[in-house]
Amino acid sequence: MNVSIIKYILGWILKIEAVFLLLPCIVSVIYRESVGIYYLLASFICIVTGWIMSHKKPHNSMFLLKEGCVATALSWIFLSFFGCIPFYLSGEIPAFTDALFETVSGFTTTGASILSDVEALSHASLFWRSFTHWVGGMGVLVFLLAIVPLSGGSHINLMRAESSGPSVGKLVPNIKETARILYIIYFGMTIIEIILLVIGKCPLFDAVTIGFGTAGTGGFGIKNDSIAGYSPYIQWVITIFTLLFGINFNAYYLLLFRKFSKIAGMEELKAYLGIVLVSTVAIFINTFNYAKSAEALFRDAAFQVVSIITTTGYSTVDFDKWPEFSKTILVLLMFLGACAGSTAGGIKISRIVILVKTIFKEIGSYIHPRSIKKIKMEGKAVPHDVVRSTNVYIITYFIIFAFSLLFISIEGRDAITNFTAVTASINNIGPGLAQVGPICNFGMFSIFSKYVLMFDMLAGRLELFPLLILMHPGILKSVILYAKPGKSR
Amino acid sequence: MNVSIIKYILGWILKIEAVFLLLPCIVSVIYRESVGIYYLLASFICIVTGWIMSHKKPHNSMFLLKEGCVATALSWIFLSFFGCIPFYLSGEIPAFTDALFETVSGFTTTGASILSDVEALSHASLFWRSFTHWVGGMGVLVFLLAIVPLSGGSHINLMRAESSGPSVGKLVPNIKETARILYIIYFGMTIIEIILLVIGKCPLFDAVTIGFGTAGTGGFGIKNDSIAGYSPYIQWVITIFTLLFGINFNAYYLLLFRKFSKIAGMEELKAYLGIVLVSTVAIFINTFNYAKSAEALFRDAAFQVVSIITTTGYSTVDFDKWPEFSKTILVLLMFLGACAGSTAGGIKISRIVILVKTIFKEIGSYIHPRSIKKIKMEGKAVPHDVVRSTNVYIITYFIIFAFSLLFISIEGRDAITNFTAVTASINNIGPGLAQVGPICNFGMFSIFSKYVLMFDMLAGRLELFPLLILMHPGILKSVILYAKPGKSR
Repeated sequence: MNVSIIKYILGWILKIEAVFLLLPCIVSVIYRESVGIYYLLASFICIVTGWIMSHKKPHNSMFLLKEGCVATALSWIFLSFFGCIPFYLSGEIPAFTDALFETVSGFTTTGASILSDVEALSHASLFWRSFTHWVGGMGVLVFLLAIVPLSGGSHINLMRAESSGPSVGKLVPNIKETARILYIIYFGMTIIEIILLVIGKCPLFDAVTIGFGTAGTGGFGIKNDSIAGYSPYIQWVITIFTLLFGINFNAYYLLLFRKFSKIAGMEELKAYLGIVLVSTVAIFINTFNYAKSAEALFRDAAFQVVSIITTTGYSTVDFDKWPEFSKTILVLLMFLGACAGSTAGGIKISRIVILVKTIFKEIGSYIHPRSIKKIKMEGKAVPHDVVRSTNVYIITYFIIFAFSLLFISIEGRDAITNFTAVTASINNIGPGLAQVGPICNFGMFSIFSKYVLMFDMLAGRLELFPLLILMHPGILKSVILYAKPGKSR
Repeated sequence: MNVSIIKYILGWILKIEAVFLLLPCIVSVIYRESVGIYYLLASFICIVTGWIMSHKKPHNSMFLLKEGCVATALSWIFLSFFGCIPFYLSGEIPAFTDALFETVSGFTTTGASILSDVEALSHASLFWRSFTHWVGGMGVLVFLLAIVPLSGGSHINLMRAESSGPSVGKLVPNIKETARILYIIYFGMTIIEIILLVIGKCPLFDAVTIGFGTAGTGGFGIKNDSIAGYSPYIQWVITIFTLLFGINFNAYYLLLFRKFSKIAGMEELKAYLGIVLVSTVAIFINTFNYAKSAEALFRDAAFQVVSIITTTGYSTVDFDKWPEFSKTILVLLMFLGACAGSTAGGIKISRIVILVKTIFKEIGSYIHPRSIKKIKMEGKAVPHDVVRSTNVYIITYFIIFAFSLLFISIEGRDAITNFTAVTASINNIGPGLAQVGPICNFGMFSIFSKYVLMFDMLAGRLELFPLLILMHPGILKSVILYAKPGKSR
């Protein structure tokens, strides 16, 4: 394995993180908070380590899928490890595991917090928390590809390991250009949302952090009651933008070039909007009562449905108190996730669509054993490899889920808490039900459980395999051997 | 579709059921219970209907997989419908839905009851309940194949639709002979268990009904506390026989011909025994306390693990009161099920083994992209078709599960009750947790929920597809058109 190119990439990731860490420094200057010094210190640590790791360009820039996976998994681990330094050193999150948990939860756009009182945090830290969502949403390696001139190698493997969904398409033949277009769309939409929020009298700081949280489908709030305290207008803006960030970014690219018929033909998009609509109406009917206005009830239903299906995790009501039918809808939506190629987590609608089609194909083969039918999506046959990898994905997903549930249950908490904590982590949502409901947090878990859940968040964000490849004994050995002072390869 | 051959088979099924219904008549004579008259009446109804349906042999005995599925699905529905007549007419189960639920639960070897006081039932009805487990365990169509001379057609399709596991092998080239051998082994093992129970001073009636329930991995008890009241010896005998009935019956066939090395090579068997051992030890440690003897604790752990993994559902303790870790182990075991080709329900270990191997293959393909590896089981490559159908099975399973959960949740009961009720039904186990725990029953569900759960039980027992094929609009139409008086085909 070409470990030197991985080291080189990790170095660059840290240098980028160093720049990112300067942003909360600026925030701390504006709000005259002393905590900024820790962000400056963390930035310094990142730049030095990053420079050491990447000052020498590797001779061999060969880059296969294997290296892509390992580089991606390690990038996210490095990013989280160095990103938690300010939380820990400043004492705002005194325990190291908690600081790491919060950072992993941020970068993976999960939004599960260990804090019981987020309002006690400094502005700089609130900003950093939300900013990690924004970086994690589109992906830091995609960012790297967009800005750093990496020569040689097939960098689609880097992008493939970090992007979501059963198959990753390039928007344009050039991978660097694709990454740049994606980030431009992402940045543009975030800005528009922030502007619309500010127009609705949302304070700028709130608008920026909510914008980051929506764009990355993260969900860290800066208020203890998440989004409940904001005006209906603001809640509607957030609902609509959350819905938009759950759509495959290819749609926006097509929109820019006015290819409307192509957008209309996106099967996953139709399924996504259909599911959102049906779920919202079902919850609206199920939660209907005369004490509240119909608009407020519909808004709450729509907000929660969109927030959960896009795996964002903001909330405007304590849905743990909803009737069981509504809660069951939300839990099922937690698994679905939104569209592939969006910033959302979860299984992704396109995978579900492919899998449902395999069922119909199977039933058809019982009835007409001799007919040979291919699974089609958007008019084109789905390659056998995509169907296979989708199946393997689902199986791996449920096996990781089962083991996580087993490990978490050792602590002896109730089944709903365990089940939804794992669900909320592996699907990068944030809140679950019962002890991890929208008005609760993950602080009470043991250190062991927290590491299990961190694994789930990373596994979910990176779509399982990069992390499993890294844990493969052969791969792990070559990484560790390389990292040793002797550098015996 | 050849509907006339399906009608012919259904007629035969009813004639067989007529004979079966005479057994509880005999029991009622022994115990001088007047309820026997209803069993005689039901037997009469079955024989008349069966004769009308099968007196004319169809010209065309063509039999494809499609007809196999439809015949199987309808057989089980007919069996349950006619089998519930005595419960209903005698007034022992006054509501029709409840009577049908109890019978479906019996034939599908689920063992979920709507009765809060089983001890109030007559001996004849207790016998019939347990006997339905025995018939359902090995399958009524397998029984039909073993005794009725069906000419022509490929009857492996009938057996395939009713037998469990990813692939159905014949023991001997002749399908009739295979069916006969299976029933001989099944009958022999049941008799041995009954003898061993009687030796342990178990009353004969109890021994027979428990024997039926164990053999079919059903789980209807004749006592309100299931098996808790019996002696340790009896509990151990039941544990061991439950374990044995969860093993692929091919193993016993091989045993008869002393092919020990082939048995030792059965991968699924090793995985099954390994999982049982590890789970038992884990629960033993987790439930350990000094108030009870170690033997009793180990016995309880072993009994519950074996009962759940084989989807039997007998209990010796109220495991709903166990610590969460032990309960989580049991819930995960509920999904596993025991070996393919046994009488157990659930997903089956062989499917899990195949799926885990696909994950390792996938990881391997990331690391060595050019190597082509086949998934092997017991030294032989697993055909691509088996891997595909296993994948489709799992996906279909989870989708049926999700919709069932959603439908059940409309009633507004707690999530644990809903989740484990569906789990216990689709995997043909019986008890779940919370409101459907081992000391509770399914009587409180609404009629709608009961039909959803009945669907799950049948879908689980028939391994999903026969029931889905029957529900296919085209198939359903031709069946209904045929059944109409005009008989327009």
